[in-house]
Amino acid sequence: MPLFSYSVQEKIFAAVEAIPPLAKWVNRLLINRIVKRARSRPHPLSTAHDFVSWKGLTDRRWSGRHLPPGVRTTMPEVDDLLDLFERRDSTQRLCPKSTCLFPAFAQYLTDGFLRTETDNLIAKGETADTRLRRNTSNHEIDMCTLYGRTQAQTDALRLSSETRGEKGRLRSQKLNEEEYSPFLYSDGQVDPDFAVLDRPLGESDLTDELRAKLFAVGGDRVNSVPQVAMLNTLFLREHNRLAGEIETAHPDWSDERIFETARNTVIVIFIKMVVEDYINHIAPVPFKLKADPSVAWRAPWNKPNWITVEFSLLYRWHALIPDTLQWDATPQPVSSTFMNNALLLKAGLLQSFRLISATPAGEVGPRNTAKPLLHVEKSSIEQDRFCQLASYSDYRNYLGQSRPTHWSNISTDPDVATKLSKLYDDPRNVDFHVGLFCEDRVPNSPLPSLILSFVALDAFSQALTNPLLSEHVFRPSTFSEPGWRAIQSTNVLRDIVDRNVAGGAGDTFISMTRQDWVPE
Amino acid sequence: MPLFSYSVQEKIFAAVEAIPPLAKWVNRLLINRIVKRARSRPHPLSTAHDFVSWKGLTDRRWSGRHLPPGVRTTMPEVDDLLDLFERRDSTQRLCPKSTCLFPAFAQYLTDGFLRTETDNLIAKGETADTRLRRNTSNHEIDMCTLYGRTQAQTDALRLSSETRGEKGRLRSQKLNEEEYSPFLYSDGQVDPDFAVLDRPLGESDLTDELRAKLFAVGGDRVNSVPQVAMLNTLFLREHNRLAGEIETAHPDWSDERIFETARNTVIVIFIKMVVEDYINHIAPVPFKLKADPSVAWRAPWNKPNWITVEFSLLYRWHALIPDTLQWDATPQPVSSTFMNNALLLKAGLLQSFRLISATPAGEVGPRNTAKPLLHVEKSSIEQDRFCQLASYSDYRNYLGQSRPTHWSNISTDPDVATKLSKLYDDPRNVDFHVGLFCEDRVPNSPLPSLILSFVALDAFSQALTNPLLSEHVFRPSTFSEPGWRAIQSTNVLRDIVDRNVAGGAGDTFISMTRQDWVPE
Repeated sequence: MPLFSYSVQEKIFAAVEAIPPLAKWVNRLLINRIVKRARSRPHPLSTAHDFVSWKGLTDRRWSGRHLPPGVRTTMPEVDDLLDLFERRDSTQRLCPKSTCLFPAFAQYLTDGFLRTETDNLIAKGETADTRLRRNTSNHEIDMCTLYGRTQAQTDALRLSSETRGEKGRLRSQKLNEEEYSPFLYSDGQVDPDFAVLDRPLGESDLTDELRAKLFAVGGDRVNSVPQVAMLNTLFLREHNRLAGEIETAHPDWSDERIFETARNTVIVIFIKMVVEDYINHIAPVPFKLKADPSVAWRAPWNKPNWITVEFSLLYRWHALIPDTLQWDATPQPVSSTFMNNALLLKAGLLQSFRLISATPAGEVGPRNTAKPLLHVEKSSIEQDRFCQLASYSDYRNYLGQSRPTHWSNISTDPDVATKLSKLYDDPRNVDFHVGLFCEDRVPNSPLPSLILSFVALDAFSQALTNPLLSEHVFRPSTFSEPGWRAIQSTNVLRDIVDRNVAGGAGDTFISMTRQDWVPE
Repeated sequence: MPLFSYSVQEKIFAAVEAIPPLAKWVNRLLINRIVKRARSRPHPLSTAHDFVSWKGLTDRRWSGRHLPPGVRTTMPEVDDLLDLFERRDSTQRLCPKSTCLFPAFAQYLTDGFLRTETDNLIAKGETADTRLRRNTSNHEIDMCTLYGRTQAQTDALRLSSETRGEKGRLRSQKLNEEEYSPFLYSDGQVDPDFAVLDRPLGESDLTDELRAKLFAVGGDRVNSVPQVAMLNTLFLREHNRLAGEIETAHPDWSDERIFETARNTVIVIFIKMVVEDYINHIAPVPFKLKADPSVAWRAPWNKPNWITVEFSLLYRWHALIPDTLQWDATPQPVSSTFMNNALLLKAGLLQSFRLISATPAGEVGPRNTAKPLLHVEKSSIEQDRFCQLASYSDYRNYLGQSRPTHWSNISTDPDVATKLSKLYDDPRNVDFHVGLFCEDRVPNSPLPSLILSFVALDAFSQALTNPLLSEHVFRPSTFSEPGWRAIQSTNVLRDIVDRNVAGGAGDTFISMTRQDWVPE
């Protein structure tokens, strides 16, 4: 329980923020406190082996792990646990704080580095489920959703032209006088220029009509819903806008240099959005955390990133997805929006941001997942068990929280607590993935407690360690004057929308926080 | 100039070392002082681009660089500079401190991670010389010379057997009742089991007789001279010896776990040799530096390794190689020992160590390279210029040393100083690679000043950052009881020889420091 009410906290932090050196100090203190809750990397174990090995310490295709495999004797059947996830009533419980821009951003962010292997790249002697222990991540916030995971993908997505007005640009097309990524398909076939890209997940089930509007992009999930394609479109435009500004400032620079300088800038702007828009939205306290790179420069926790299997699992926030979305005149079931970029193209970028920011998200927590998505919860619990994750109680202990001794330590909802008590013999035996989502939502945050701790921890310990933010790299020459200026002057996503839509954003409401949110 | 003579320093440091907590503190102080002379990683630039780019910051196939490309207007012809390297007299100038075990260890160590690309893996739009800017390094001290650079190579080198008495072992053969790596060739053809290994450099020029005795090993330079194959043989035996001890202690462990645990141990023992045998031999002061992992745990310089092009160039110590070596009854020219493993097999491991430790090394410095090796000096200067390295003066400044204002600031040898003054218009314009090797040798060290600084800097900043030494990994369970004990009880190479030759090393002199060395 906080010492002061939210409104008193607001006054205290406003006073702190009015004194920049004090604000900087408090910012550093808070970030260090958040990160130091967990052990610093390198983690001794990854999913490669259950013992410490050179392969496990160096081959990042295997996922890291915070805790060693747990041994639990009695575990309920997975099917019996789904009752804890399935929505009771016909209407979804909504989040009082978040708009649908929050889950859209969360998905776009995490699709870039939470990348459990999807293909069965199974070698001799491996079981088919081995892919659940592996990833295709670069382990950095590198905007691979926009630029591709590999050099060959980046090359395919670039215009690569030394012609004036084209230097450093990503390939794009104009539709309804707005800029979008080019289409992946041409005359019903994948454009050969884009053969090296990761194919969009789920494209095989699509109608020709939907397939024709898939974008050629870096990420295999960018096309999954139009609000994610919307975010990628925003950063595509920002990249090309910056490339234009950099070219104007440096007409003698090559295509390569302009491209790389614009990319440096877009990555850092994105990281700034992660901290200053996304994390501040999640944070239950009204202090505005800043992406101050110097916090990490000499921090003992500044060690190479390595995405963990726990992080990959705890980011499955299906309950946030609304049942309906109003892309058109009438609300439509969310399932009809999947891979449907026509909705984005019809609305245009600004109206899409307006719409998504006007729609409340669902609430993360127990009994709020729609029936058609229950199979995803099931496979998440199965992945938890396949990776032999330690118990929910062990992870609370790991982050310095007390172990649950009563069911009510997990959930204050008597229904949930009772159900848990019938499924498990002891609160200490609850599965990690189950405990995570049974917890109460933290007041003034969209997330339950343990998820919130992990998200904040991993955001800072893996975002501020980005090489572009490092001590001798984060300086104006790395970004050019227009790039540096853009970084300094961007604080929320809305700032980027404003400069990338015709006529600006005007008074359109664009935010991860609901316009009608009232602090709890 | 040191404040005290070497013998007084010896007394002071002996007093310090008698008080363990004080010795630990001094050790930490000295290592931090050495490492902090240079900028911490990540370096803003690599050889990928002359500007900061995401590719340059993340793709380690490109070599790092300490300083940005330098612009120098007048530079002498490379051929004219060779006079500074070529030996004057017929007899080699010898190093008063080092035996040939020192260069053998230096080569074995650096062949593992200073790996300028050797094949022309040239893609579209690249020049043929691009390989000089690239590497095939894993950027870790990982004993890839023994275990291979890739998983497939490691698999090929392993016995991979669950049979008792074979678990966790590397493949080997018995010759003259001693253990060696298996031969690479079988009936004149590369054994298909070893097809994935990197082929030994220079093997195409060999006679069938020499080729038949090449070992199947991890490193493509292990076979280059018998004293390097000797070191690899030592660690092969140590691995298999440890695997045996671990199997005895843990009969239930799998081949995989025993192999990985022995490998963890061998890598850490090797790093201990790097610091406590090799670096202490190089150090001009008599304090015995220790490989104390905790020095790096919270150090702000503990950042991911990235081998630099400067480090790669400054480690070319051809002058150390003696003109003759006495493997048999009579001394023979060193050229006849190249890739000649028969010499090692005939002498056996212990006698080889004795012989190499009984032979003084040449002195690193100007005018001490044998004529047949001059072409290597030439290509090093060409690589320096191809990579547009900054000047020798810039690198002195980078490490906090004064820039040279007179020729005598580079060399006190009037011949060398005069020659330099005729070749360059200003001491500040001397090429990095030329200045490095024209400097005077530091008293009581085998190395000239700037090379010494870089070697110590990079040894600590890249060895103590090894993941096996990290805070939550460096503990007994990572190595097993026999492994942990071996780490604790090994201080110099001689300790490892002693337990891996029949009957032990007895009173055989084995050392990088000459038996007849007298401090200067």
